[in-house]
Amino acid sequence: MAEAGPKRVPTRRIEARVAGLFSGAGRSFETQAVEVLDLGFDGLAGDRHGGPTRRTGGRESWYPRRTEIRNERQISIVSTAELAAIAEGMGIDRLAPEWIGANMVLDGVERLSWLPPRTLVFFEGGATLKIDGDNAPCRASGRAIARHFEERPELEQAFVRHGRHRRGLVAWVEKPGRIALGERAELRLPEQWIYA
Amino acid sequence: MAEAGPKRVPTRRIEARVAGLFSGAGRSFETQAVEVLDLGFDGLAGDRHGGPTRRTGGRESWYPRRTEIRNERQISIVSTAELAAIAEGMGIDRLAPEWIGANMVLDGVERLSWLPPRTLVFFEGGATLKIDGDNAPCRASGRAIARHFEERPELEQAFVRHGRHRRGLVAWVEKPGRIALGERAELRLPEQWIYA
Repeated sequence: MAEAGPKRVPTRRIEARVAGLFSGAGRSFETQAVEVLDLGFDGLAGDRHGGPTRRTGGRESWYPRRTEIRNERQISIVSTAELAAIAEGMGIDRLAPEWIGANMVLDGVERLSWLPPRTLVFFEGGATLKIDGDNAPCRASGRAIARHFEERPELEQAFVRHGRHRRGLVAWVEKPGRIALGERAELRLPEQWIYA
Repeated sequence: MAEAGPKRVPTRRIEARVAGLFSGAGRSFETQAVEVLDLGFDGLAGDRHGGPTRRTGGRESWYPRRTEIRNERQISIVSTAELAAIAEGMGIDRLAPEWIGANMVLDGVERLSWLPPRTLVFFEGGATLKIDGDNAPCRASGRAIARHFEERPELEQAFVRHGRHRRGLVAWVEKPGRIALGERAELRLPEQWIYA
């Protein structure tokens, strides 16, 4: 009886590795490569995406702009393979994680952007991130990319199109700690099912 | 190209109604019926499940007990139908939401406990909750139920068995506000897919 319900896919674990770390500088959208990230409950100190709460934008069309809500988007995680696929789709030779404000490149996870919400990422050094879910590509990121290519203003919209379900994940800090470049991480995916 | 990936179920909306509100009193596990809940970013003020962070227990077997992590379990939501199904399975005439520390009874949502993580619950009065996911039944809740029935100590374990995927959801406050009894709520389910 208690087992009735949708078909469930069991929890599973995936090994990954931190292949890049980047932090924001004040108000700038782009990030810069760093050796370590020091994470607190508020995310990255001094980062424009840090803090216990955040202001909404066009992504949250159901709220008036700049509504204060709890911040589930402290950290942006991307994968090398997905960025390469976006770049190919956009017809550019590369897409640097920094250009779109990523904080971390995680290697070893296929289809990173499709990881289920509620996935936990346990880092070797003790920090834990919790995945809110896929990060919808926005025009601000598209503009940031276009600035790196002369006479390609169409890249702004192209990113929104080609970045869908490839632009990585947003996450928040479940457990503070220091994450170092090259560190291993273990992902714990929750049980999955489709609510119908 | 950008559309490649698992089969996706589109977002959808579900109408619901607040059929019960309950708040905790200090250290007690049980809750008491109230007319309104005043929610801040820390959850319910003075509630044992409130606060920006919480201490882990047996549920988070991957951490040492009492590890401080971000609190995604501020509010417990249950449904009348699921509580009735648990009660039937346990062989008791009723299971009151208060006994297992629920904060809210939500009517109108079939299989409430199976709602996908990342679902948003917009309340008529302006508050928003964000669903972390299903709430695994624990022995502490089972014990709290057993206290209401003489000479039925087996109810403690029976709840863990029969409460699976029926014990409701845990959520956190995305947007503060006052929720009143009888208020309508609109649920916004995210796109769904299985990561394989």
